[in-house]
Amino acid sequence: MRQAYQVRLADLGDHGYLMCQLTSTALRDATKALLNADLALAEQVIASDVRLDSMRANAEQVAFELLALEAPVATDLRAVVSAMWIVADLQRMGALAIHVAKAARRRHPAHVIPVGVRPIIERMGRVGVHLADQAGLVLRERNLELARRLEVEDDLMDDLQRELFTLMLAPEWDNGVGPAVDIALLSRFYERFADHAVAVARRVVFLVTGENVGGDTTPAEGNYAPES
Amino acid sequence: MRQAYQVRLADLGDHGYLMCQLTSTALRDATKALLNADLALAEQVIASDVRLDSMRANAEQVAFELLALEAPVATDLRAVVSAMWIVADLQRMGALAIHVAKAARRRHPAHVIPVGVRPIIERMGRVGVHLADQAGLVLRERNLELARRLEVEDDLMDDLQRELFTLMLAPEWDNGVGPAVDIALLSRFYERFADHAVAVARRVVFLVTGENVGGDTTPAEGNYAPES
Repeated sequence: MRQAYQVRLADLGDHGYLMCQLTSTALRDATKALLNADLALAEQVIASDVRLDSMRANAEQVAFELLALEAPVATDLRAVVSAMWIVADLQRMGALAIHVAKAARRRHPAHVIPVGVRPIIERMGRVGVHLADQAGLVLRERNLELARRLEVEDDLMDDLQRELFTLMLAPEWDNGVGPAVDIALLSRFYERFADHAVAVARRVVFLVTGENVGGDTTPAEGNYAPES
Repeated sequence: MRQAYQVRLADLGDHGYLMCQLTSTALRDATKALLNADLALAEQVIASDVRLDSMRANAEQVAFELLALEAPVATDLRAVVSAMWIVADLQRMGALAIHVAKAARRRHPAHVIPVGVRPIIERMGRVGVHLADQAGLVLRERNLELARRLEVEDDLMDDLQRELFTLMLAPEWDNGVGPAVDIALLSRFYERFADHAVAVARRVVFLVTGENVGGDTTPAEGNYAPES
């Protein structure tokens, strides 16, 4: 019985790691679909939703059963509770990647992103994918040093978002209202994706150290829009 | 011991109810601050952040201790796990209300919302406040019928958001890019606020019935932007 329990607990951790990889892939492909107006790739990302939803549902079910049947304590209890939070963050990251893919699908065959904005969206995509990958490593290796570094990388996303808003609100912006509205929402999706990756890392810190059970688990959100 | 435990469990429920009231007030005041360019009211909403954060932290701490020390089962276990989810949703609702207040502050003394858009924002505010109030009732009365009705009201928010995007993307829109970008993000905040209120109600359904432990707890998000 004990052994089966340890196996289920370990599975729960692996589950989170696999979901990190899936969300990373989803955001990478969604960004590619967006930048290349690639409808087939967008559809493929959108279809991945079901898998992340059912992975979250399974993980929650396992976590709940472990609580009910095994009454874990100390590190094991933190591992179960953390897993419940982490899969919620990861499902949300998947949903945000899918929002990006849906923007690509909605405007197809038109391009959503004007040429002058492409480099910033590309970088936002890269930062988001990197954060998801790093969150996966933090989770697998329980690496606290890496967890703390994620916070710094998240600042990059906020900087990119500010850059984007400065571009859109400048008098030289000649792409009109529609693309600006799309880009404002897209940048919000990337920003929130990054926030959730940082939240995953923070939950691992709690898992390992017991610090901040209900502490500051929601990363500060950037002040998205420059004064104007 | 048992008695103290029941008291703590009941406190956890009251905690959620109180947080519902706070987020409802926060969104009502934030919307008023936005529509009236009322800086003092906006600052007051922004200051309420700290209280919601610490209430969430306390509730998580209590929930974690109950799991560790009492190993609850059945309905009690569902109540503890639900409370952890519910306070997270409520903290997020508070954060979204604060985003609305920050938009008012950022543009002060200018008005963020052009005259033609005011009625829709007013209605989004009212729907959001109503959903938070209803979620509080669902929580206090464990009222499943009311919980199910919240889903329908959430559709209203999606309709309002679509109306808003239709206005902004019409050729007659003459308020420029800046207000459109602000409004796009604001409408997203209202929409997500409503989604989290529905999520609270769904967690109460789980608490009472045990259905959907890891099921469909994230409401479907509306297709925010019309085809154009």
